[in-house]
Amino acid sequence: MTDHLQVQQQKLELPLGFRFHPTDEEIINSYVIPKVLDEAFVTAAIEDVNLNKYEPWELPEKAKMGEKEWYFYSRKDRKYPTGIRTNRATGVGYWKATGKDKEIFHPPLTLIGMKKTLIFYKGRAPTGEKTNWIMHEYRLESNKELTSNPSTATRTVTATKAASKGEESPPEYYS
Amino acid sequence: MTDHLQVQQQKLELPLGFRFHPTDEEIINSYVIPKVLDEAFVTAAIEDVNLNKYEPWELPEKAKMGEKEWYFYSRKDRKYPTGIRTNRATGVGYWKATGKDKEIFHPPLTLIGMKKTLIFYKGRAPTGEKTNWIMHEYRLESNKELTSNPSTATRTVTATKAASKGEESPPEYYS
Repeated sequence: MTDHLQVQQQKLELPLGFRFHPTDEEIINSYVIPKVLDEAFVTAAIEDVNLNKYEPWELPEKAKMGEKEWYFYSRKDRKYPTGIRTNRATGVGYWKATGKDKEIFHPPLTLIGMKKTLIFYKGRAPTGEKTNWIMHEYRLESNKELTSNPSTATRTVTATKAASKGEESPPEYYS
Repeated sequence: MTDHLQVQQQKLELPLGFRFHPTDEEIINSYVIPKVLDEAFVTAAIEDVNLNKYEPWELPEKAKMGEKEWYFYSRKDRKYPTGIRTNRATGVGYWKATGKDKEIFHPPLTLIGMKKTLIFYKGRAPTGEKTNWIMHEYRLESNKELTSNPSTATRTVTATKAASKGEESPPEYYS
């Protein structure tokens, strides 16, 4: 991991101690909106990935950078071709939402996006076994200008890993 | 503040969402040790400042970068010429230690430094009025090779501001 991180940081020529640590607002405005508008949009920090194809512990090596958390763009997969429910299953488990979605504001009052927190369970619902992997999924708040055009209706998400309880304590800068 | 940050980030050509967010170990190994060894050591993120000369609310504009926390190098000032107590008074108040110093390890077991947490009080001890300004002070754990040479015995500190309760909620990435 460390070697991988160093290679990535060298590409960006980041001085030591600098990290990708965006605020929720920056994620929406600077990373989700440009991606929704242009699927070809690429960044130094966020890799395109199909989150249904990988287990959470396979994600770190797919990421462009990151030590304790990793960022990805992923298209949402429909659970059924005719439905709107999102398929969040992987080969051996599934991501399940927890808590209430958090509203993301452009100060002071403009609602620009939503953040959903999900936990990974091994097995199949409803009998899956809870793990310590957490994901935060960012989406735009409905905006006709962006989402009425089918070609720009790509949903994007961001995945984050919380340190497993048995492994190590969370770093201080963990959000 | 935002303009100031952007100017600084442009100098470093940091992509949006990248920040100076070092771990405690990185601060000691990559920023405190080089500074102790060579007072002329400069970095993109940490400004030299005399922390006795400025009130905490004057520090943000002295910093090289930062939004919610700011990093500084500062020589320790002796309270009395013959003593070892540190003078942490400013013009209108003083920094007072709180809690226990935290040990900083190079994994798994090498103690490399200590982190002291201080709170700023307005007025004079012991009747000062507590504020919401917090500082974390990093120092090397006694190391003869570094500290036996008087010219390299510079103590360095790092100042951090916690969001004032009345102002705004702490950012998610706040350590």
